[in-house]
Amino acid sequence: MTRPLTLHPDRLFPAEPATRDIARALYADIAGLPIVSPHGHTDPAWFATNANWTNPTELLLAPDHYLYRMLFSQGVPLDRLGVASRSGPSGADPREAWRLFASHFYLFRGTPSRMWLDHVFAEVFGLEVALEPAIADLYYDRIDEALASDAFRPRALFDRFNIELLATTEGPHEDLVHHAAIRQSGWAGRVVTTYRPDAVIDPEHEEFETALKRFGELSGEDVFTWNGYMAAHRKRRADFRAAGATATDHGHPTALTCDLPQSEKEALFGRIVGGSWSAHDAELFRAQMLTEMAGMSVEDGMVMQIHPGSLRNHNRWLHQNYGRDKGADIPTRTDYVHALKPLLDRFGNEPELSIILFTLDESVYARELAPLAGHYPCLKLGPSWWFHDSPEGMRRFREMTTETAGFYNTVGFNDDTRAFLSIPARHDVARRVDCAFLARLVAEHRLQDWEAAELAHELTYGLVRRAYRLDQPQAQAA
Amino acid sequence: MTRPLTLHPDRLFPAEPATRDIARALYADIAGLPIVSPHGHTDPAWFATNANWTNPTELLLAPDHYLYRMLFSQGVPLDRLGVASRSGPSGADPREAWRLFASHFYLFRGTPSRMWLDHVFAEVFGLEVALEPAIADLYYDRIDEALASDAFRPRALFDRFNIELLATTEGPHEDLVHHAAIRQSGWAGRVVTTYRPDAVIDPEHEEFETALKRFGELSGEDVFTWNGYMAAHRKRRADFRAAGATATDHGHPTALTCDLPQSEKEALFGRIVGGSWSAHDAELFRAQMLTEMAGMSVEDGMVMQIHPGSLRNHNRWLHQNYGRDKGADIPTRTDYVHALKPLLDRFGNEPELSIILFTLDESVYARELAPLAGHYPCLKLGPSWWFHDSPEGMRRFREMTTETAGFYNTVGFNDDTRAFLSIPARHDVARRVDCAFLARLVAEHRLQDWEAAELAHELTYGLVRRAYRLDQPQAQAA
Amino acid sequence: MTRPLTLHPDRLFPAEPATRDIARALYADIAGLPIVSPHGHTDPAWFATNANWTNPTELLLAPDHYLYRMLFSQGVPLDRLGVASRSGPSGADPREAWRLFASHFYLFRGTPSRMWLDHVFAEVFGLEVALEPAIADLYYDRIDEALASDAFRPRALFDRFNIELLATTEGPHEDLVHHAAIRQSGWAGRVVTTYRPDAVIDPEHEEFETALKRFGELSGEDVFTWNGYMAAHRKRRADFRAAGATATDHGHPTALTCDLPQSEKEALFGRIVGGSWSAHDAELFRAQMLTEMAGMSVEDGMVMQIHPGSLRNHNRWLHQNYGRDKGADIPTRTDYVHALKPLLDRFGNEPELSIILFTLDESVYARELAPLAGHYPCLKLGPSWWFHDSPEGMRRFREMTTETAGFYNTVGFNDDTRAFLSIPARHDVARRVDCAFLARLVAEHRLQDWEAAELAHELTYGLVRRAYRLDQPQAQAA
Repeated sequence: MTRPLTLHPDRLFPAEPATRDIARALYADIAGLPIVSPHGHTDPAWFATNANWTNPTELLLAPDHYLYRMLFSQGVPLDRLGVASRSGPSGADPREAWRLFASHFYLFRGTPSRMWLDHVFAEVFGLEVALEPAIADLYYDRIDEALASDAFRPRALFDRFNIELLATTEGPHEDLVHHAAIRQSGWAGRVVTTYRPDAVIDPEHEEFETALKRFGELSGEDVFTWNGYMAAHRKRRADFRAAGATATDHGHPTALTCDLPQSEKEALFGRIVGGSWSAHDAELFRAQMLTEMAGMSVEDGMVMQIHPGSLRNHNRWLHQNYGRDKGADIPTRTDYVHALKPLLDRFGNEPELSIILFTLDESVYARELAPLAGHYPCLKLGPSWWFHDSPEGMRRFREMTTETAGFYNTVGFNDDTRAFLSIPARHDVARRVDCAFLARLVAEHRLQDWEAAELAHELTYGLVRRAYRLDQPQAQAA
Repeated sequence: MTRPLTLHPDRLFPAEPATRDIARALYADIAGLPIVSPHGHTDPAWFATNANWTNPTELLLAPDHYLYRMLFSQGVPLDRLGVASRSGPSGADPREAWRLFASHFYLFRGTPSRMWLDHVFAEVFGLEVALEPAIADLYYDRIDEALASDAFRPRALFDRFNIELLATTEGPHEDLVHHAAIRQSGWAGRVVTTYRPDAVIDPEHEEFETALKRFGELSGEDVFTWNGYMAAHRKRRADFRAAGATATDHGHPTALTCDLPQSEKEALFGRIVGGSWSAHDAELFRAQMLTEMAGMSVEDGMVMQIHPGSLRNHNRWLHQNYGRDKGADIPTRTDYVHALKPLLDRFGNEPELSIILFTLDESVYARELAPLAGHYPCLKLGPSWWFHDSPEGMRRFREMTTETAGFYNTVGFNDDTRAFLSIPARHDVARRVDCAFLARLVAEHRLQDWEAAELAHELTYGLVRRAYRLDQPQAQAA
Repeated sequence: MTRPLTLHPDRLFPAEPATRDIARALYADIAGLPIVSPHGHTDPAWFATNANWTNPTELLLAPDHYLYRMLFSQGVPLDRLGVASRSGPSGADPREAWRLFASHFYLFRGTPSRMWLDHVFAEVFGLEVALEPAIADLYYDRIDEALASDAFRPRALFDRFNIELLATTEGPHEDLVHHAAIRQSGWAGRVVTTYRPDAVIDPEHEEFETALKRFGELSGEDVFTWNGYMAAHRKRRADFRAAGATATDHGHPTALTCDLPQSEKEALFGRIVGGSWSAHDAELFRAQMLTEMAGMSVEDGMVMQIHPGSLRNHNRWLHQNYGRDKGADIPTRTDYVHALKPLLDRFGNEPELSIILFTLDESVYARELAPLAGHYPCLKLGPSWWFHDSPEGMRRFREMTTETAGFYNTVGFNDDTRAFLSIPARHDVARRVDCAFLARLVAEHRLQDWEAAELAHELTYGLVRRAYRLDQPQAQAA
């Protein structure tokens, strides 16, 4: 006996009827707004080549650490799910991997992954029965068939999803050939890049040495001297802006910043490129470079995003055997108040500077982030992130930041995903949860209904465009 | 088109009808109770001179860092809002500053400031249209006119607000002339002081040196010797008690306490007054002085309030140009369990000692503060404070402390404000949120209705009077 | 005028009618399931001797630190409540102690203790009026009379409570005579032990020296050598398994683990048993022993429980006069991500290893524990613990862990109590709160009703049996 797959029109709205009615009305007004996705990890090659994706496992399962980490936690080996290891691609048959996934789909009950997937299955693929082990093959076949069709090529889905802008993330050691190809193709879809220099800033990054070398080649600068290294950043930032970037992104282990005297900076840089650095040097260099990046943002107007607080590759065995980004990154306690002070002492009152702060440590929402963003003109709060990109996480974000920072020091939603097909689902969840929150404020007479309607529009569309400077000349120059 | 300004009678109550009915009934019983305000920062000169306030900007906007920090966070310069800087008063025209405020009033949507202001506008000034840019002048004129009338002098409002007791906060380096004048005036309003010795205890306080000197003059003691310094505290505490004080207040960066041997205390004090202290010495001295203050409270029965965990003057440029208390204080992670142990080891079981703990770090509510207050006879929990003095903040406080500490280890509400006109609004929010919380417990059959009614009265009126010892002889002696 | 004592059938369910209906239906299905209690602190002697308990004070009040800590916090001396001190049993008359308790019963409004007690009074003793000072004697007499009857002997209540399994907690320095007596008695009740080696692992434990000596005697090993000490653990673990144990339990001040080279381990052990250890050594030894215990669990399949983060005996005076476990243990901030890494680096991917993590620091639920349990196959999350074993605490646990770890990386409920009569009450609260949480997910269309019904059964019965390996051969061998 199969069960129907339906997306209830009231999902994520409060059950209390009067409040639900308010949420429905708010949502009805903004459900159709275009998607603006200013931060994510899709592959620009998809939109450059517009080639069909291969099969359900390779598209939906094997690259999605949200999914396979849960199965792994219940004892399912990654290679059976199609996840590549350091020794090469998984030998698993894609259909078998999919069946294994389907037989564990119940694990996702109560998780956002479940909601996103059901949305993808129902809305993107038109499936009408719920996924369960007995119909794994039906799903596999239907999705596989769809993916081979023109209607499911990347650009067609981009248009169908009503995406107004999609930002990818690249490093300064990467060329931007796919972005160039997209622009030269004449396709109207707006896909921009983001400057993510971690690989050339973090000496503890696995790719640091090769990335630094490539950074020098692409910039034509001697990146092994401080001045050349800084000049290379300026050049590559300009290249990225030319490819539509309006923002940078920084994923350091902590939010530490510092502001060393010139001589100390250069001595530190010498140790870093000389390969004789300590863990303390690495932390200090990342800290100094956040301040340097802020300085360049003052110059060129790029918005900084800071995503700190993840301890990467926590599972040593997994890292040794499967490499990085395999679902084993774990958040840690993160300080912002002391950590950001050196950067803010230097640039915190510059009118052109804009920094969007993210966290994986919810204890800082009300204590540190909302008070900081509710004071500093240069600081805004990114949406609830990663493990907190979920209905409960979004609700806590609003409940713990709004009263001190207001709504207008936030920046709308980020999907932050490499799972392209889930982008509409993720934005839809955010819109629904925001409408539910606003509806509660209206129902409790803390906000007027017309204000909530304005805010729903701002949280969905207005704030993100302004926060990421998507209407500014440099952005449009792309 | 203007919009009506109305305060909905059900505001802040749960939307679920049965629960809302319970909240309404609880609130109806306690809405009219007198205001007891045992902790705040109003200016006693207002009640001593009973002079009219000047204009809306100088009364409502320029002194209220809750308001101008939000505008500053969106790029509005403080001097345009009438905020004085170190170089002198703002040159801004008060009406222009008010218009600028009105044009940014939407920023406060979803914040407690918005609710407090709407309450002040509607209830105190009788305004009937909502504030928006187009009617900034109407507001300015109506408020300006009211402020010039006798009905809006400080004592008239004090009486109209049904304030039973109002505590101000002064330092031991300040005379208490205004409190003396109030008592000598024959006016029946009960305005008392609070002993806040931070300026003579914290070597890192900007005014430490001048405050210490003045402390010596006012006490007639040689405050540059340990014995004289301690004697001066005892004398000034007695002076404050004579001016109605029943409590002290301590706003240190951390909650650290220590209990040094006599010789080390004196050596530390020598470094402090000798001006040769380190940051560590400063922290240690503050820590030791919390323990000394507890010892004096055991002697004289004054209730201690400890308000730790704010990193003051985080914005360096602003501090240099505008001075302290300009909305740039940011909370930090705060430990209580280890920090308070030395003080508690020394005095924690003294029957006369009573310490009210506050926090800006909500992660300690359930983890540290409720377990401490649910055990130590000398410890009680102050209400949710500052950035957490808000509907969501109050709700979290109750949800995270009640199950371990109960209601009876809390102390009612503090408005903690210098914004005198907002005092009824703030107490009203607290009463509504407490009734909403109690209503949920009743609706979920976790509490009987008659118990909730008793508790609503206690949370509004009973607990604060007992916790601050407002009925004890020394208090009434004032 | 007395008031009726009734347990409302909808208690702890959401007030919103549609959601409440869902909760009711979920609860109706699982309310009658047997109680599985895999972690607690009841006395096995009760079930071995099956003797009657003495009186209400000695059974319900004097041993329950949840109760007397609240009264102590409001100034009631412990000896008046029948609590023994280091100088001997309390001299308080049990009936007078009970009256004193009754006169302070209002302090528990809004706490779980109140709900548990009302359940015990109504369901276990059939009392029909609510406890208040005027009827303290009626309660005392009715309970006293009941306790003297056969129907209230331990085994009769065990059967009446429908307990399928009850785990007690013993140390390796304790014989298991009561468990042996239970098994030899022919009584069918399944009471098993748990291996809790803190007293022989923690050099700072008051009983460390005597416990270690006894550990050697019971194991027949030379526990003052590293090899003998390790062999003794293996032997005693086998003894415990033979007495039905399927789990170990570790209550360290922190979650720190380490993995020292063999020579350092032995040198450290030498300092520990030589009595020349520092506080750092003690912490390091506890850390190393967690890793060793994990290694033994890989060998013998015992499930590890880690309960860190309590600062024991915070009140120095109380500890000196009344000893340990007197309600003065206070939680502290606790790190898991860094602390557990050495153990996980060593054993984290062993298929046989299973570790259940608990916390007193709710800030780690979403930040650390859910991400860890949602990745590592060996990690699962224990229920909300101790101060957080409460309706709000359970709700926060589900809200903050489910979206990342799912339901299936949790392990059902622990009552963790020595208050035997409250066990049905505690499990009932957990079942109701879980049903309320599931009902919200259904009402918000985040979960199907049939999934919620399956989950309610799993959270109540299925998960605990699998997580504690209650169906495995070694368990049944007991």
